[in-house]
Amino acid sequence: MKPFPLILESIKDLSTGQVQDVFKLAKSFKDGSEPEGTPFSSKGNELTDKPHFKSKTPLIATFFQEPSTRTKNSFAIAAKRLKTDYVDLAPQFSSLKKGEDLEQTFITLKYQGVNLLICRSPLEKISSKVKLPNVAYINGGDGKNEHPTQALLDAFSIIENGLDLSETTIALIGDVLHSRVAHSLMKLIPKLGGKILICGPSDWLPKGDLGPSIESVSTLEEAILRADVLYPLRIQKERHQNAVQNEDYFIKHFKVSLKKLKEMNKKPLVFHAGPFNIGVEIDQDLLDSPLFQAYNQIENSIYIRMSIIQLMLQEFGQS
Amino acid sequence: MKPFPLILESIKDLSTGQVQDVFKLAKSFKDGSEPEGTPFSSKGNELTDKPHFKSKTPLIATFFQEPSTRTKNSFAIAAKRLKTDYVDLAPQFSSLKKGEDLEQTFITLKYQGVNLLICRSPLEKISSKVKLPNVAYINGGDGKNEHPTQALLDAFSIIENGLDLSETTIALIGDVLHSRVAHSLMKLIPKLGGKILICGPSDWLPKGDLGPSIESVSTLEEAILRADVLYPLRIQKERHQNAVQNEDYFIKHFKVSLKKLKEMNKKPLVFHAGPFNIGVEIDQDLLDSPLFQAYNQIENSIYIRMSIIQLMLQEFGQS
Amino acid sequence: MKPFPLILESIKDLSTGQVQDVFKLAKSFKDGSEPEGTPFSSKGNELTDKPHFKSKTPLIATFFQEPSTRTKNSFAIAAKRLKTDYVDLAPQFSSLKKGEDLEQTFITLKYQGVNLLICRSPLEKISSKVKLPNVAYINGGDGKNEHPTQALLDAFSIIENGLDLSETTIALIGDVLHSRVAHSLMKLIPKLGGKILICGPSDWLPKGDLGPSIESVSTLEEAILRADVLYPLRIQKERHQNAVQNEDYFIKHFKVSLKKLKEMNKKPLVFHAGPFNIGVEIDQDLLDSPLFQAYNQIENSIYIRMSIIQLMLQEFGQS
Repeated sequence: MKPFPLILESIKDLSTGQVQDVFKLAKSFKDGSEPEGTPFSSKGNELTDKPHFKSKTPLIATFFQEPSTRTKNSFAIAAKRLKTDYVDLAPQFSSLKKGEDLEQTFITLKYQGVNLLICRSPLEKISSKVKLPNVAYINGGDGKNEHPTQALLDAFSIIENGLDLSETTIALIGDVLHSRVAHSLMKLIPKLGGKILICGPSDWLPKGDLGPSIESVSTLEEAILRADVLYPLRIQKERHQNAVQNEDYFIKHFKVSLKKLKEMNKKPLVFHAGPFNIGVEIDQDLLDSPLFQAYNQIENSIYIRMSIIQLMLQEFGQS
Repeated sequence: MKPFPLILESIKDLSTGQVQDVFKLAKSFKDGSEPEGTPFSSKGNELTDKPHFKSKTPLIATFFQEPSTRTKNSFAIAAKRLKTDYVDLAPQFSSLKKGEDLEQTFITLKYQGVNLLICRSPLEKISSKVKLPNVAYINGGDGKNEHPTQALLDAFSIIENGLDLSETTIALIGDVLHSRVAHSLMKLIPKLGGKILICGPSDWLPKGDLGPSIESVSTLEEAILRADVLYPLRIQKERHQNAVQNEDYFIKHFKVSLKKLKEMNKKPLVFHAGPFNIGVEIDQDLLDSPLFQAYNQIENSIYIRMSIIQLMLQEFGQS
Repeated sequence: MKPFPLILESIKDLSTGQVQDVFKLAKSFKDGSEPEGTPFSSKGNELTDKPHFKSKTPLIATFFQEPSTRTKNSFAIAAKRLKTDYVDLAPQFSSLKKGEDLEQTFITLKYQGVNLLICRSPLEKISSKVKLPNVAYINGGDGKNEHPTQALLDAFSIIENGLDLSETTIALIGDVLHSRVAHSLMKLIPKLGGKILICGPSDWLPKGDLGPSIESVSTLEEAILRADVLYPLRIQKERHQNAVQNEDYFIKHFKVSLKKLKEMNKKPLVFHAGPFNIGVEIDQDLLDSPLFQAYNQIENSIYIRMSIIQLMLQEFGQS
């Protein structure tokens, strides 16, 4: 069996079987059949023989260069639930603009004994630009590139709703171009047999060949007609290089509301990665609707991240 | 018996008997008869059957929208002493000005598995403005409204000094109007049978009917003559809407000093919630005096908060 | 035997024997012969009889008034490895400019139950200016005065390389005057029988009698010829009172590079306390060389700090 990757930067780092392993362990954490804080190596104490792994308690660090409360907190809670030692390294923004500084920070954390590093950075595709230290590494969001753990918890939450991904169509709506969540979903959902529709102002849609499982549709109405899951995306203003799209135009044409779904007599699941800009990409009426899955996504974020951390640390202990 | 409240926003949320329960358990923590880190439910593991309470280890979060080192640290230490999992959610001040954002943060924390949320906010009476999530909730200070855990530790510290609250008079001195500690004490002390004197510049005293147990006195001298406990209050400049009271005038008429107490031949206990503005509301000579109770208050803050957290989590596990 | 000091502000607080004790325990942590999280008192539970030491789990606090990620993180990891409770008190820079405020913070931490306080401050020689509370205290860097734990881990790392300190010469290169690491090394290395060379622009060298074991040399070449260990120092621009030294001049005359070492056919160990200003005091070619010891220093920082914390808490429990 292919070993679980020690670097999770992109959905491409995972095979379909490994994605299934993540989901299976997350489900066991959620239903309580997998106890929290299990040994990280199935072969006993050999973790302690690893260089920089002298302790039996794994050490996990978050290093988030962009402000984020909810995602960092989700990783922190997952680490604590697993009874690991956890530290958060606060970034000094002034001194970490260059990849060189990022590399110094990473190697310092490695030699301080960190076994798993979770990093959020405006720098994209870090592993191709910075020499990653020999520790397990999870991408917690890199610029507008990817956010693989979010996509994994989204897919897990879709399946948990009883949908068969190979027969499911998911519509990503709005600022697809600048959304790292969208980019990870556009890799993960096709890998699991599903279909993606993308829908939004043309400036915000990726161009070029998107592969056989991804299709661009021109109106929100078409997306609603065809999709089992709607996924309105937050407008990523901070990542826009040009003048901001007219927001009124966006709201008029692409805001998802329960009212519109009722007019079209459709009941798709509605996902959102939060935080919500109510009245912009999503209406308040949907937040109060049973179709709305965001809170279930948040709950599953803990189990999915526990699962990824445990699978990675087990592999790290044996590699 | 009335169950311990799951929301402690105001002293009004507690019955007199519940206040006594808080004091009793705090005393047991302090004298060591109650072990730290006891099970949170007397009935065993049923906490794990609660929704969002899958773990046997309760998860406590602080969310402080105003800068505070000592109070947040006191709650953090109490949480650690009780062997709970603890996370601090750093506020992003720019994005949390509206109640709507506060509500999103709260519900996110709930679904991330937080069982008890401790919040400090400039927004007053949050439970009437924001839908609180179904988790235990402690008000760590809301604007100039209330700070119930501070009042509880103050009353506990008074009793610990051998005073019988039903025969005790406490003088709140200075900026009573803007002090949330004062507002909580003005509810708690009468509930426990004690009397309150308020004393300060007239702009800083609450108007209207204050009830039978609270009396306004016009001079510091009268307060000193009649009170068993003096409680000088920090001037809450950041909460003043009008021009700041003349500080020299305040110091001349309302600063509490050991020198003045000696002149009047009085030995009241002197309480302070910290931080101290030495030379403004209190003189250095008092800080060095055995009358000064602030350090005892700080020590008791840990035991009182441990007690409240434990009583709340036990109730949460059974509700 | 002289008890281990409860205040480690300067290298002068430690006897030579106590330094050896620190090294011995650090080595035991590193080779795994000393288990992590051992009892902090060899006599059992009497720690719990100490005032403010009611818990069997020691409580450690960091309070860093200057931004620092790596050093604070190193102490945090050491505290977690020892299974203590750990809190970090974030400074509110605006309100902590005066020693008076520092004193209030310290005494608050003491009464909140902190047993060991680790402090970094721009204020130098704090114990002579501020009444330290009756808790164990480690100086994590005070202005340009001292940084004793860094010097201890440096000396430990030198010895670990097989060098006999009594026959070893260490060259401190660059901004010696403003480097607290240099100042601690200039006390520690002579205490252990070693010799120090200092070398840099004359404005950055301390004047006056430096004692028999410290010698000023005028060129980098002479330092390289005579030293077993080179220790280039980061330019401490933030502590300079006058105009900054011309950086080009500094680089030309004092930058340490592998190229220069090869030209002189010398292979000294090269130490650095990080962060590295590559191309200023040190060249990239050295970072990639086996002579470079900075990562070993970082790794040892955890063991040395664990050792100091454990020795101090054991003493605190018995004093």
